[in-house]
Amino acid sequence: MKRVNLRRSVQESNDAVAARNRETFARNGVYVMNIIGSPGCGKTSILEYTARHFDGRFAAIIGDVKTTLDAERIAACGVEAHAIETGGGCHLNAAQIASAIGKLPLAELDFLFIENVGNLVCPSAFDLGENIKVAVLSVPEGDEKVRKYPDLFVRADVLFINKTDLLEHCAYDIDRVKADARKARAGVRIFTTSASGGTGFEPWFEFLRGTRERAVAGPQ
Amino acid sequence: MKRVNLRRSVQESNDAVAARNRETFARNGVYVMNIIGSPGCGKTSILEYTARHFDGRFAAIIGDVKTTLDAERIAACGVEAHAIETGGGCHLNAAQIASAIGKLPLAELDFLFIENVGNLVCPSAFDLGENIKVAVLSVPEGDEKVRKYPDLFVRADVLFINKTDLLEHCAYDIDRVKADARKARAGVRIFTTSASGGTGFEPWFEFLRGTRERAVAGPQ
Repeated sequence: MKRVNLRRSVQESNDAVAARNRETFARNGVYVMNIIGSPGCGKTSILEYTARHFDGRFAAIIGDVKTTLDAERIAACGVEAHAIETGGGCHLNAAQIASAIGKLPLAELDFLFIENVGNLVCPSAFDLGENIKVAVLSVPEGDEKVRKYPDLFVRADVLFINKTDLLEHCAYDIDRVKADARKARAGVRIFTTSASGGTGFEPWFEFLRGTRERAVAGPQ
Repeated sequence: MKRVNLRRSVQESNDAVAARNRETFARNGVYVMNIIGSPGCGKTSILEYTARHFDGRFAAIIGDVKTTLDAERIAACGVEAHAIETGGGCHLNAAQIASAIGKLPLAELDFLFIENVGNLVCPSAFDLGENIKVAVLSVPEGDEKVRKYPDLFVRADVLFINKTDLLEHCAYDIDRVKADARKARAGVRIFTTSASGGTGFEPWFEFLRGTRERAVAGPQ
């Protein structure tokens, strides 16, 4: 009982900071995506490909337990990338984001990508103030992940199924994954990509363009 | 400060239960391995292959956020498998193991495999009373995981590099991973396997046989 209350208290404190982040993002007209997936599913590679091939103004905040390797990869694409080393922490929290966004030119951005710590469990429970959560799965992880880790998939508006170049080498029922994802969250947008091969990105870019146009048009 | 003390208190409480588990395991002469890796790295597949091809007496405790799919896979190999659904929890703890082992014929076992929740971060911080931690990485995850998630690799006595059948399709410097792992923990035993292809398991089986013989011989 004590632990439950404590968890609630940590969550409520995080939620209050996340709400302030959300106001800041809205005031600056930046659309924010919280990208969540297992270690090595291709989160950074998807951002790299997007940075190199999508014409938009964006920045990235990259969380990792240790090293700034991923932030360096994004910065090498000419995108402003801020690294957060959690030093053992298993997810990003709203306070870390609040601290990082003070260093970013928010008003000049269309999009802010937040790459969470590689972890399919803990990050889904912590609101950062984002507009949407983006889940990333990869083919070699196996096709039962939506069922086994439901907490992310009931919350994610976008799902990438990445590393489709490995489909021919893995037993993977992609239709089953899509059906599981739609059962977890009706209306989820699903993009099937190979970030290393550069395939499947046009529908994602179309989604980004549509999001930006709706943001410019303002609330209907 | 409050949070640090609280985390310490949770850890100390866990450690006390883990110590009792460890006494129970030693009294029953069962050697216990805590298997940790990302979602989809092949933990269950390694256990399946071991169950089908290694001649030994073992049981398994299988942790998952949701579903008992993995425990069913192990049970289908003729091995007693106990499922723990954490319902959102990101790691197994010692109390869950204490509860599960009451239902297992410990005195009849050589080995108990505990498959932790798919997560490269949180499980490494919680002692379950095991003899050793076994880390599992897979080739498609990428070759920088030891550097990015060091907490597991400083503690693991055994490392599997699995899915070697995908080496020819992934940019993966396996020597770099081995070097990083040995730097994190000198003397780590490394097994390179393809659980789906059934290759690389003989050195692992040799390791299990040696462990059992040392247990039978008792302390020197």
